Amino acid sequence: MNFDQSHALFRRATAVIPGGIYGHTTPAATIPGAVPYFASEGFGCRYRDIDGHAFIDFMGGYGPMILGYHHPEVEAAAEAARRLGAAFNQPTPLLVELAEKLVARIDFADWAVFGKNGGDLTTWAVQVAREVTARPKILKITGAYHGADAWCTPGHGGLLPEDRAHIHDFPFNNVTALEALFAQHRGQVAGLILTPFHHPAYADSQLPTPEFTAACNRLCREHGALLILDDVRCGFRLSTDGSHTVYGYKPDLAIYCKALANGHPISACVGRAAHKAAASRVFLTGSYWNDPAPMAAALACLDIIARDDIPQKLARTGQRFIDGFLALGIKHGIPLVASGPPAMPYVRVADDPSLLRTQNLCAAAIAHGVFLHPHHNWFISAAMTDADIDEALLKLDTALATLR
Amino acid sequence: MNFDQSHALFRRATAVIPGGIYGHTTPAATIPGAVPYFASEGFGCRYRDIDGHAFIDFMGGYGPMILGYHHPEVEAAAEAARRLGAAFNQPTPLLVELAEKLVARIDFADWAVFGKNGGDLTTWAVQVAREVTARPKILKITGAYHGADAWCTPGHGGLLPEDRAHIHDFPFNNVTALEALFAQHRGQVAGLILTPFHHPAYADSQLPTPEFTAACNRLCREHGALLILDDVRCGFRLSTDGSHTVYGYKPDLAIYCKALANGHPISACVGRAAHKAAASRVFLTGSYWNDPAPMAAALACLDIIARDDIPQKLARTGQRFIDGFLALGIKHGIPLVASGPPAMPYVRVADDPSLLRTQNLCAAAIAHGVFLHPHHNWFISAAMTDADIDEALLKLDTALATLR
Repeated sequence: MNFDQSHALFRRATAVIPGGIYGHTTPAATIPGAVPYFASEGFGCRYRDIDGHAFIDFMGGYGPMILGYHHPEVEAAAEAARRLGAAFNQPTPLLVELAEKLVARIDFADWAVFGKNGGDLTTWAVQVAREVTARPKILKITGAYHGADAWCTPGHGGLLPEDRAHIHDFPFNNVTALEALFAQHRGQVAGLILTPFHHPAYADSQLPTPEFTAACNRLCREHGALLILDDVRCGFRLSTDGSHTVYGYKPDLAIYCKALANGHPISACVGRAAHKAAASRVFLTGSYWNDPAPMAAALACLDIIARDDIPQKLARTGQRFIDGFLALGIKHGIPLVASGPPAMPYVRVADDPSLLRTQNLCAAAIAHGVFLHPHHNWFISAAMTDADIDEALLKLDTALATLR
Repeated sequence: MNFDQSHALFRRATAVIPGGIYGHTTPAATIPGAVPYFASEGFGCRYRDIDGHAFIDFMGGYGPMILGYHHPEVEAAAEAARRLGAAFNQPTPLLVELAEKLVARIDFADWAVFGKNGGDLTTWAVQVAREVTARPKILKITGAYHGADAWCTPGHGGLLPEDRAHIHDFPFNNVTALEALFAQHRGQVAGLILTPFHHPAYADSQLPTPEFTAACNRLCREHGALLILDDVRCGFRLSTDGSHTVYGYKPDLAIYCKALANGHPISACVGRAAHKAAASRVFLTGSYWNDPAPMAAALACLDIIARDDIPQKLARTGQRFIDGFLALGIKHGIPLVASGPPAMPYVRVADDPSLLRTQNLCAAAIAHGVFLHPHHNWFISAAMTDADIDEALLKLDTALATLR
């Protein structure tokens, strides 16, 4: 598999873009030389790169494409809204309808607001917690991704010590460390932010222990801090009504994004009535945030997710894929380790601390038409049928044979 | 003119959204009770609210709709890209084409990056300036809007002292104050950020004096600080190639957004080769930032802006409107004051420090089908013909008669 067009265009890109491609889709974060650098089109659970290779896609745009590329119902809803206009002087009624839908869907939610990106609202939620409590400190999980804003970015450039003066990290599932931070900063903790399960880059996913979720709920309540659930990546993939119901979190604020509108740019934060007045005091806006098309897409996507019980379908499809993949590992003498829920699995080669063998595994998969990421959890698409999974496993069978 | 549907829906909204409507489109920031709260559809330079009133629109969604709602060429370009997909695992070639177009168009630009909102990139530009200089301080204009992020938001909720520990304000056009800040923070200033002209809310617009632009250029150069031009609101409205050419700024970084893609969600930051490596070290990403449709819209919009010399058209149309409006003020004995460039005018009642009479003026205009904002600069649309302006002036003639 050659990526001549990708590499040629990347050379053009480096002339006019810092790093050529920035952010999470930069080749440097994947397997430089062994992956496409530019996409051309998507359809269902597959997409094509600019060299003409087609892939069965286990990343879905790093999450948004929960129903598959160009889902007819979602696209029709978005297009109907788009014909009316985009950035108005006022919002359209879809703003209210979407807030009402989330409030009806999510048990603890009394209100909702919307942004364009997950990080728009993880950052806003942190500010709401500070406004509610009049305290500065935020506790977060070491290695968790909550966006590219200064308080949480995984990057290193352009930061000041002040950006993180009140951000304190602790390891996921570590109740003792969480208790110690609450004790150390008694009366100063505005909020605890975490993802429903821990899905760090370059490491296995970790599901929360019941003791950990109970401790998060209890310590936030005891200390008067807000529990902020960053459900950007998991939301509506693990359950139809927010991932907190899967693991038993009792959040005060939750942020949704990637699966909310099947690729249309929108994010949401929901919260409780007790914090609504404070939330209204934290200024929130953007030039295109009232655009009705992504709101129409979200309304359609949320309906489909409930109507077709998409989380149950993703779990079943994901389990079929993991079972088949692990069996192929045994067949080919390449021991594999799976982590994360089946709807968002991550599979790596065992005893591979550098992830070099996992990179080779994913490079071979990509070369055989199955797009896997060596350092990031994957995303099962509802557009995947059993036949798609079986085709992917057949390709992986051939791919693994090349690695022996 | 009654707004029964707007008011009924706003009551529904307050049940599920903090404040009912948040951000710059909140009724509280306009003329509560005298303006529509929800829009239904737009077409050219007009839009309709949910009570069925049609307005000739002098706000254009607070800027984005430079060519008018649902411009056929821009929509066709966006739709063609959208059919290919949205959030991919990689960018599409449109990323490179759009960066190349901006680099070719803007004289000092050697590279470009893209976000969704203006504030995404004003904040990033501040970080780039800090990364380039290894200094913390940012100088900005008192009352200037650069987005809703903590370092610059006009809001008050959820902020910490640390958020603005290194942000220092000074009045627009005040060379002495700027010199004093550079002297006071010698060796510590990373950048100066400002808009091409000063367009504060609740006040007249101010054009820069030649002495001021010269001082901005000279002091940034002498002190090794970056000149960051926030061209979010003005960009491509005052000239086809960035507003710095209009006033003589020599920016190091410039941010564009509102007029870039006629309402499709995208923003851009361009910069110089000398800062490209540093820029690549400031992490920048978002879930939907590679979406090809807004990039296709931006390519089409930039082409149309150049092909049809839209800035020249906006200036001519805006001048016709201002001249007519000021004449109506004289006719009706309501002295008016106009400020800002004709493409982005702001007209208020003279001797009206509370802006109460200006609110009454705008309320009357709205009641007669002309949408004006009492506290924010307006935006002339390229979709406005002389006949539209004359129709607006006829409506304003009737509106002003009601105010005597």
